[in-house]
Amino acid sequence: MPYRAPVNEFRFIFDHVVDLASVAAEERFAEATPETVEAVLVEAGRVCEEVVAPTLRNGDTSPARLENGVVRTSPGFDTAYGAIAEGGWVAVSADPEHGGMGLPVAMTTAVNDMLSSANLALQLCPLLTQGQIEALEHHASDEMRALYLPKLISGEWTGTMNLTEPQAGSDVGALRSKAEADEDGTYRISGQKIYISWGDHDLAENVCHLVLARLPDAAPGTKGISLFMVPKYVPTEDGGVGPANGVRTVSLEHKMGLHGSPTAVLEFDEAKGWLVGPEHGGMKAMFTMMNNARLGVGVQGVGVAEGAYQHALAYAMDRKQGKSLVENGTGSIVDHADVRRMLATMKAETFAARAITLACAVAIDRSTASGTAEWQARAALLTPIAKAFGTDTGIAVADLGIQVHGGMGFVEETGAAQYLRDVRVTAIYEGTNGIQAMDLVARKMADGGEAAFALLDEIEAFAETARESMPDLAAPVWDAAETLRETVEWLVAQGDLNARFAGSAPFLRGFARVLGGYYHLRAAMAEPGGARERLARFYIARILPEHEGLLAHARAGAEDLYALTPDDLAA
Amino acid sequence: MPYRAPVNEFRFIFDHVVDLASVAAEERFAEATPETVEAVLVEAGRVCEEVVAPTLRNGDTSPARLENGVVRTSPGFDTAYGAIAEGGWVAVSADPEHGGMGLPVAMTTAVNDMLSSANLALQLCPLLTQGQIEALEHHASDEMRALYLPKLISGEWTGTMNLTEPQAGSDVGALRSKAEADEDGTYRISGQKIYISWGDHDLAENVCHLVLARLPDAAPGTKGISLFMVPKYVPTEDGGVGPANGVRTVSLEHKMGLHGSPTAVLEFDEAKGWLVGPEHGGMKAMFTMMNNARLGVGVQGVGVAEGAYQHALAYAMDRKQGKSLVENGTGSIVDHADVRRMLATMKAETFAARAITLACAVAIDRSTASGTAEWQARAALLTPIAKAFGTDTGIAVADLGIQVHGGMGFVEETGAAQYLRDVRVTAIYEGTNGIQAMDLVARKMADGGEAAFALLDEIEAFAETARESMPDLAAPVWDAAETLRETVEWLVAQGDLNARFAGSAPFLRGFARVLGGYYHLRAAMAEPGGARERLARFYIARILPEHEGLLAHARAGAEDLYALTPDDLAA
Repeated sequence: MPYRAPVNEFRFIFDHVVDLASVAAEERFAEATPETVEAVLVEAGRVCEEVVAPTLRNGDTSPARLENGVVRTSPGFDTAYGAIAEGGWVAVSADPEHGGMGLPVAMTTAVNDMLSSANLALQLCPLLTQGQIEALEHHASDEMRALYLPKLISGEWTGTMNLTEPQAGSDVGALRSKAEADEDGTYRISGQKIYISWGDHDLAENVCHLVLARLPDAAPGTKGISLFMVPKYVPTEDGGVGPANGVRTVSLEHKMGLHGSPTAVLEFDEAKGWLVGPEHGGMKAMFTMMNNARLGVGVQGVGVAEGAYQHALAYAMDRKQGKSLVENGTGSIVDHADVRRMLATMKAETFAARAITLACAVAIDRSTASGTAEWQARAALLTPIAKAFGTDTGIAVADLGIQVHGGMGFVEETGAAQYLRDVRVTAIYEGTNGIQAMDLVARKMADGGEAAFALLDEIEAFAETARESMPDLAAPVWDAAETLRETVEWLVAQGDLNARFAGSAPFLRGFARVLGGYYHLRAAMAEPGGARERLARFYIARILPEHEGLLAHARAGAEDLYALTPDDLAA
Repeated sequence: MPYRAPVNEFRFIFDHVVDLASVAAEERFAEATPETVEAVLVEAGRVCEEVVAPTLRNGDTSPARLENGVVRTSPGFDTAYGAIAEGGWVAVSADPEHGGMGLPVAMTTAVNDMLSSANLALQLCPLLTQGQIEALEHHASDEMRALYLPKLISGEWTGTMNLTEPQAGSDVGALRSKAEADEDGTYRISGQKIYISWGDHDLAENVCHLVLARLPDAAPGTKGISLFMVPKYVPTEDGGVGPANGVRTVSLEHKMGLHGSPTAVLEFDEAKGWLVGPEHGGMKAMFTMMNNARLGVGVQGVGVAEGAYQHALAYAMDRKQGKSLVENGTGSIVDHADVRRMLATMKAETFAARAITLACAVAIDRSTASGTAEWQARAALLTPIAKAFGTDTGIAVADLGIQVHGGMGFVEETGAAQYLRDVRVTAIYEGTNGIQAMDLVARKMADGGEAAFALLDEIEAFAETARESMPDLAAPVWDAAETLRETVEWLVAQGDLNARFAGSAPFLRGFARVLGGYYHLRAAMAEPGGARERLARFYIARILPEHEGLLAHARAGAEDLYALTPDDLAA
């Protein structure tokens, strides 16, 4: 089932749903002309279709493996990675000063989306590099940037992020890795890090680890954490690769999916490291990297949803089974109501999730270009939603993809199961989706709901306008926005944070439902009477109503939840 | 994480939720005394805990394999299977005349639930045997019953069902396997069958295949299908094992999960077969087997939900991470609101699904004992709901179990991922859950909704009574039943079946939501002020509201769905 890059879909969303033109109108992104946007979509799409996608199954059937201390990647990954690096697709938004394209994050998002459909396991490698580039652009010294950025942007070297330790997962502040200053201004880093994606491999000359560790005089918790660059090979003065550093790949995890991505346990033993940002200021730099990565991971979910959808649709269009009840049907199982419902759900949800991630990207770009608090707040608000809903959609759509395949869906050779097994981790890494939901109702509502209300104003204003020509679509979207507004009002009035947390995950999902309704309505209004209006109609009548149950859950508070004691749970 | 059989849970549900006493009051089930029920639960629970559960991971890590034409099962499966057979747990409800216990299907359901938690892949083997026993009890000749039933009931031989062919999955009528009569009254069976669970193995002396095939003069479609018994080894007169029959294991599938269960492609080449039931009457006998199996597969989902829940709860109680916001907490991640929400959801959903399967089993038992049309209709109505909601719950709970584990959930050694990979197929086999939903809105509503209305009357009457002491729980359940009633009224008024099919899957789920509310309310009323009331409160406030969105979807009709053309889907 060859993957087909949804170039038209990006064009449409950019033009009619998230207003990319408003980004291109900013001087900072003057280069993002319609011609450039077109060229990037088409060319990156071509590489994904022709070079990357054919390697997808290899990653699953021939996982990365650790041989004599060295990680060997899956067959074909070197060629595919080479094409990604050569095309400049590692760092579409990186600073042109060091070889980047300087294009909006919206363009990076579209490219990451396509790469994720084509081969999620491989795409994770440049995604991590992107995060490292951004962290270095903001926090590294001039020398470090001059040395590392050209190598990372070209893809000659790759980046990793080293946070997690066995006792320090979601609670980063509990980490124990140590850093000691040397006389030459460098540091000696020691400790063990786990879950290091692409922690070692043979695709690039060097692997650059950004490592969180504690200096001897550090305070406990997150305030005592510093960030260090610890490359696998110590760079030479001229940007070449010198002697091996004190970092060793102990083992690779045996995972449910994403087998093509080596997940390493790394042991740092007095490895040479360079401080990034100030001492004890590591969390701030790491947050830069993580914030970028949150959107990036949400987009991974969208990309997998697209891949799984195309795969299931092709199967369904081809599969003949049973008598159809429709006249002039295709003769395939697409004619069956429940199969069509599943496919329509997959398509409608993928659109909603993609629109949310691209709206988040545009908000980041507007914020970068204008520096206004409003766009910063919008980007901050949308990031946890993009991450959690994007990945939840990837999982749900991949799961439906299996179901569309029937018995064939459970057989690995079909490839349908791989999408689900691969994408499952995206709801966990980069902050579990539960953590995203807590972020949404706490930090992102610390403004008293201002950013959320601004977005709801926009939605309701649009729905008001749409009410004239499409009342049956506009009215439910307006009503849903109003229910969400009441829920936000309820949330911000809760002084006890746990009252917000208790329903935070359903709240995030309910929020995404309303956003999905809004973006579907925009799409319908842009092409009245067309396929997009029909898809919007399906979504608004059948999927949008879920927001009521979800938001009721969000407003239920913590009392009945904590009334259920651990003893009750174990009873 | 050792599995603990939930014996108290079965006791409670039998006593307070599904009224097992009404079954035991029937003469047919006079042996199901409280003492016998207790002994079965405790002893079967002990075997599951001590002998079966320890083999769960083996099935995944050392899959069944085909060696020189013979299937070798996973390490330890022989011992575990031996204990199941020896305890009499293959055929709790089978006729005592041939060695069964003659106990209610409700007891079989409880035993299957525990076996499914302990090792789903292995449990599938006796589950198939159970279906075969029932088919033979109803449709085989006296001689065939005398020969096969003692062997199947004791577990010395096992049974399989052979329906699917590459072009004939959900559409059984498209099958092409052939049967030709021989002079001695037997038949020669030829053809290829796929997806044959436990199609070959080394756990028992003989493997008895029930095979659907066509006689030369057969009509096309399901009306021309006959059923044959085709044993791997031709039995001798005295019930021993004779020469090998003409059936060959061609290959085993490489599946997403359930690796311990060998899924075979079988080639029948003029194999000797014996007719079961009349010529061209195969579908009826097969339906007996399939109907039994539908409840059995729903129970598989419940069992996996229980296993995944216990596994996740143990992890969460042990795992320390981050600061808790609750006073006097456990210090583990159970204190975190979203983790507690996930665990409470898992527990509340497992209870709802278990109550539905046991209510279905009780309806089957009442129907068997009394033969009344009312109980037959109740059993028929609940069967597709038990199958689809039971398995969907298994999948959803196993998925939440992964999420509770965080990063560890994606690492296979933890065992959390196996539950999801194993249980995923249960939504597909024995009629996909989409097929179940179609069955519910078409065949099971062919009575104009009578069976559904009778159940809703029962629910509303109970809610009325409960309103006095627990108004905040009873009112939402009554309201939900009323919304479901309106939806059923809408459905049965639709002459166009596709208008029902278009929302059939959400309808089935919405129906299950209402049933869940009812059974939780019964549990709360039985133990007011206790843990069960607290769990009911959680379910009714947070999960029950989903029925509104689901039933709105159910009433949306087919128009907007079919307005989305295949071209739209491919756009």
